[in-house]
Amino acid sequence: MGLVVVGSVALDDIEAPAGSVKSVLGGAASYCSVASSYFVRTQAVGVTGDDFPQEHLDFLASRGIDLAGVTRAQGRTFRWGGRYHASLNQRDTLFTELGVFERFDPVLPPEYLDAEWVFLANIHPRLQLGVLEQVRAPRFSAMDTMNFWIEGSRAELEKTLARVAGLVINDDEARQLTGESNLVRAADAIRALGPTTVIVKRGEHGALLFDEAGVFAAPAFPLREVQDPTGAGDSFAGGFMGSLAAGGSLTPDALRRAVIHWSVLASFCVERFSLDRFRTLTRAEIDERFEQFRRLTRF
Amino acid sequence: MGLVVVGSVALDDIEAPAGSVKSVLGGAASYCSVASSYFVRTQAVGVTGDDFPQEHLDFLASRGIDLAGVTRAQGRTFRWGGRYHASLNQRDTLFTELGVFERFDPVLPPEYLDAEWVFLANIHPRLQLGVLEQVRAPRFSAMDTMNFWIEGSRAELEKTLARVAGLVINDDEARQLTGESNLVRAADAIRALGPTTVIVKRGEHGALLFDEAGVFAAPAFPLREVQDPTGAGDSFAGGFMGSLAAGGSLTPDALRRAVIHWSVLASFCVERFSLDRFRTLTRAEIDERFEQFRRLTRF
Repeated sequence: MGLVVVGSVALDDIEAPAGSVKSVLGGAASYCSVASSYFVRTQAVGVTGDDFPQEHLDFLASRGIDLAGVTRAQGRTFRWGGRYHASLNQRDTLFTELGVFERFDPVLPPEYLDAEWVFLANIHPRLQLGVLEQVRAPRFSAMDTMNFWIEGSRAELEKTLARVAGLVINDDEARQLTGESNLVRAADAIRALGPTTVIVKRGEHGALLFDEAGVFAAPAFPLREVQDPTGAGDSFAGGFMGSLAAGGSLTPDALRRAVIHWSVLASFCVERFSLDRFRTLTRAEIDERFEQFRRLTRF
Repeated sequence: MGLVVVGSVALDDIEAPAGSVKSVLGGAASYCSVASSYFVRTQAVGVTGDDFPQEHLDFLASRGIDLAGVTRAQGRTFRWGGRYHASLNQRDTLFTELGVFERFDPVLPPEYLDAEWVFLANIHPRLQLGVLEQVRAPRFSAMDTMNFWIEGSRAELEKTLARVAGLVINDDEARQLTGESNLVRAADAIRALGPTTVIVKRGEHGALLFDEAGVFAAPAFPLREVQDPTGAGDSFAGGFMGSLAAGGSLTPDALRRAVIHWSVLASFCVERFSLDRFRTLTRAEIDERFEQFRRLTRF
């Protein structure tokens, strides 16, 4: 029931109304693995530069994450800088330095190849496909993507989409990928490309799940204080995949609970900068907020 | 258990990707009354010009709406023109001609004065207060407002807010009214001004209800086709107030069901231009979509 997570490991500079931090742990694979680690043994795949602090690896290991697939290359770690606007729902990218991530070509350690659950965070669709081809018999694989690949690598993206069971995508990208402004029709069009399960992320408005049973709407948790929205979508994916893998089921009910687990993990993620909230977060707190989501939505 | 609804009666020109219509029935009081008419006897208050087509009054009367409070004045009816963008979540106002609405000063017919439920759609807060002072002993009163009054008539707005039990407001206006970018804190600040129940409208993302029991998140219904978003917020308020008045209860459960009824009515409203969907909509369809909302949110 292991979960393989492939994606970026980064050092982030973040400016937000609540403060500024520099060279903090970031990257989709970091957020996603830490979130899924609350549910299931997670095997991470990524690359760091030789400037990557040992303390970050120690933190990931402390969450029980298998780091055999995280290699250390000569050069600088992927760095990203962003500045959030006052409302927190918009941000400017200050810089993106790919560093060693530019030559990232994921090779899975032998002990990862029997994984039943695979999450491909946002990397080149050709690399995502390469990972899928390494894993022997995944039960459920899902991927993220972004505008850059939709515009520039559509043929490879469609080839990869045809091979995955789930796509996690934000609302603007879903419209861009399909040319449909209506999200219900956009989800139909995406499902026609391959994935049977489509999750449309809507930031502070939560997410919509489209699957064979219909549509499910998950709100984002209304928080009194948000420090740093970075990684919310990634920790969402981690909560979703971790919940699925731990339950071992792909029924509509299991998928819906997994989307709520995603939203729970995302809600904790944004309470502090970087992955700091996960340094103290317990499984009991996750279960408590899951119940709060029932109260938030029950009528 | 009567419901009084006060607001604009208008003739709208609407341009949207699905088509264009001219001089169709519009106005907050029209949308709101027609929506609430599915639940409770509704007493409308508004003004039309002498150019207002009898067929529109006939339609409102056919929904059982009491039109004793809708006066006919010499001059032109309030006219509004809008053009929606392709995504439907943005629009440009093409023109606003207040006509007889500019001198609207609502006087309630004697038989309205014992109403238990009052909804004050978006008009000058001084006029809203004037209506409240006419009704003898309302059990629950709620109001809408807009950026124009928040900027230009704050003192009168705050005076009116101190007198109502509920405020219906969109997210940007909630932030503008309170200076709080975080919606949870903005709702706290609004509740400190008077209303115990605050409903924050988020367009295609649904609504948040804040009351003494906490927060409740209602999604918008994911529709495959939207023709005309005009009036969704108003028919929402009508569904909400009508549901409350029909149930006769103000418990947290009743408020939550009422928010879902709002979302149900809004979802039908946008399926056709103007109020056209309500020309055929039945109570059975409303009840069926209410159950669909359970499936949409249950986990």
